[in-house]
Amino acid sequence: MKFDILRDRLLEGLNDVMKAVSSKTTIPILTGIKIDVTNEGIRLTGSDADITIQTFIPVEEDGQQIIHIAETGSIVVQARMFNEIVRKLPTNEVEIQVTTGFQTHIRSGKSEFHLIGSDAAEYPLLPELTEDQKFTIPADLLKSIIRETVFAVATSESRPVLTGVNWQIKNETLICVATDSHRLARRKVQLEDLPEVEHSVVIPGKSLNELNKVLEDSTNLVQIVITSQQVLFKTGDVLFFSRLLEGNYPDTSRLIPEEYQTNVTINGKALLQAIDRASLVARGDRNNVVRFEILDSQAVEVSSNSPEIGKVQEEIPVEALEGDNLKISFSAKYMMEALKAIDGQDVVIQFTGAMRPFILRSVHDDAILQLILPVRTY
Amino acid sequence: MKFDILRDRLLEGLNDVMKAVSSKTTIPILTGIKIDVTNEGIRLTGSDADITIQTFIPVEEDGQQIIHIAETGSIVVQARMFNEIVRKLPTNEVEIQVTTGFQTHIRSGKSEFHLIGSDAAEYPLLPELTEDQKFTIPADLLKSIIRETVFAVATSESRPVLTGVNWQIKNETLICVATDSHRLARRKVQLEDLPEVEHSVVIPGKSLNELNKVLEDSTNLVQIVITSQQVLFKTGDVLFFSRLLEGNYPDTSRLIPEEYQTNVTINGKALLQAIDRASLVARGDRNNVVRFEILDSQAVEVSSNSPEIGKVQEEIPVEALEGDNLKISFSAKYMMEALKAIDGQDVVIQFTGAMRPFILRSVHDDAILQLILPVRTY
Repeated sequence: MKFDILRDRLLEGLNDVMKAVSSKTTIPILTGIKIDVTNEGIRLTGSDADITIQTFIPVEEDGQQIIHIAETGSIVVQARMFNEIVRKLPTNEVEIQVTTGFQTHIRSGKSEFHLIGSDAAEYPLLPELTEDQKFTIPADLLKSIIRETVFAVATSESRPVLTGVNWQIKNETLICVATDSHRLARRKVQLEDLPEVEHSVVIPGKSLNELNKVLEDSTNLVQIVITSQQVLFKTGDVLFFSRLLEGNYPDTSRLIPEEYQTNVTINGKALLQAIDRASLVARGDRNNVVRFEILDSQAVEVSSNSPEIGKVQEEIPVEALEGDNLKISFSAKYMMEALKAIDGQDVVIQFTGAMRPFILRSVHDDAILQLILPVRTY
Repeated sequence: MKFDILRDRLLEGLNDVMKAVSSKTTIPILTGIKIDVTNEGIRLTGSDADITIQTFIPVEEDGQQIIHIAETGSIVVQARMFNEIVRKLPTNEVEIQVTTGFQTHIRSGKSEFHLIGSDAAEYPLLPELTEDQKFTIPADLLKSIIRETVFAVATSESRPVLTGVNWQIKNETLICVATDSHRLARRKVQLEDLPEVEHSVVIPGKSLNELNKVLEDSTNLVQIVITSQQVLFKTGDVLFFSRLLEGNYPDTSRLIPEEYQTNVTINGKALLQAIDRASLVARGDRNNVVRFEILDSQAVEVSSNSPEIGKVQEEIPVEALEGDNLKISFSAKYMMEALKAIDGQDVVIQFTGAMRPFILRSVHDDAILQLILPVRTY
């Protein structure tokens, strides 16, 4: 194997696949990245067993010669070391050559590295995915869907399936649900080219967070292929594979109340900032609980009280109020995350009583729905 | 005590004094900041017992009214909490009032906080410094002096006095020396208004690092007052006090060789980058050792070798060579820090043998001198 390549383009590719490489892996070969050289270009692969990222750098791009292939082949090199070496090379031209015994030579300017590589045949193979079940989502919409749901997954491993986001496909709708059993985030989106077969899979929250870092904030289409054990997201030259979580995701639809006693319409941003301030005092308390009280049809009060630190209170004007007055307490953290997911628009909060779950949604629709269980304090 | 103040100006002041507040302090009152309100303005004080920072906000600044004083007084409030509250207040007008029992009320817009403060009389008093021994240094020069020496202090507490930088004043020269007994950094600077009495004090490295963050990169003069137990740096409205380290600093002047067998003049930046690359491989080894060999009058070679990772070698052109050829090994970290302190100019490296300390300095003068002990490998 022997080729030369422009350092900066190689770095771009490494930057994508390094996101999958973990220093904590227990599988030694996965501390490396695999380099496959064919006559068409080079393919880089990084993996932590849960997530695998692959990227392809073609020999020629936009009419510019990126790579000269002298000899094809494959090698695995220590990922972090290789990435750092490439980043620090003195010139933009790099020659990479593998000789007997997986000896990997990296030459640039007057600098020459000799690394001890590993046999590419030992690197795990990727699953073969049939692409007849694929659909597409614009990258920016996919990033929004992730942002609006993934924060609500469980962080504890006591019910592993709750550490992922449930993606259901039915009736031409993609429904994404995350819950840690104290709050729930749901995003519905209608898409045109969804598979006709119903699907329900659970994608690890960690995978979606990493995917979010790989995706660009553009309207470019991301192709998605779902199989029974893996999901593939394909964008430009990057392939992002994630394993799926096993186990049945609970049916959450019955958690969402159907009738409400109190509907409050309020400026989401003003409420978010008031709760952020109240949580400064509430944080002294372990549960970070703030109180919310409807004063009259004009205003609500957000307050918090911590015996050791002090207290805080603030009035926020209400846009509209229907139904009964109410005092309720909830986690400031959950409320802030829910309001951030709905993102500053006018928000409707619908209550069915001080001890019952309440929901938040935009005034316009329920594409994004956030549900929070209150905390008993009154 | 009661006043109102512009939030953003209060935040600026807090930003300075917060640098002295440590969450690790064992003295409870020092988790707070002291606020003293007089008819002239407010003074903020933060301290971790080693470092104390004080700043003054006047009632009026550049013709703008910053503060309205209704009632003078003093209070100590929990530093981190107060800082976060002020940062998140909804409007730029803040009213702060202390009522009985150290109750501290912070009002802004419709938001109202009540914090439990502490008695300002419990806050440690600052030493009274007589200012007859003061001298001045431009802030940017002081920052350079810190940057060029402080990295070389000892990180281990086995000889506490070596965790500080020795400042000597004699013969109208300030000489700053730091050493961890494996390498040494020395900076000499001639100043006009130095005290005539000789001084030799040791300023904790940590204090100098914090001072560096407080100082602006400007030519504004910093006033310095040295006493037997404290040093004060005064810049604009900010007073920065540090305790001094006790104990005699070793006489380091005899460590510096007086004759050299080999003088190499080389581009400091090219050498720094080559050593940075070599250290990628050397880091696998515990001591991070790189080798340096004079090939001929035209070039030196920097190399490193790690049985598990691989090896690296690189030639660097030499500007001038006098004296004998040489092979020597040293810590890549020490060499890179020394080269960064001299900062990219043409550098002279002076050797007296493979097992003897060598020095680095600029071609122009020896205002900055760096000394490194080699490592035995050949």
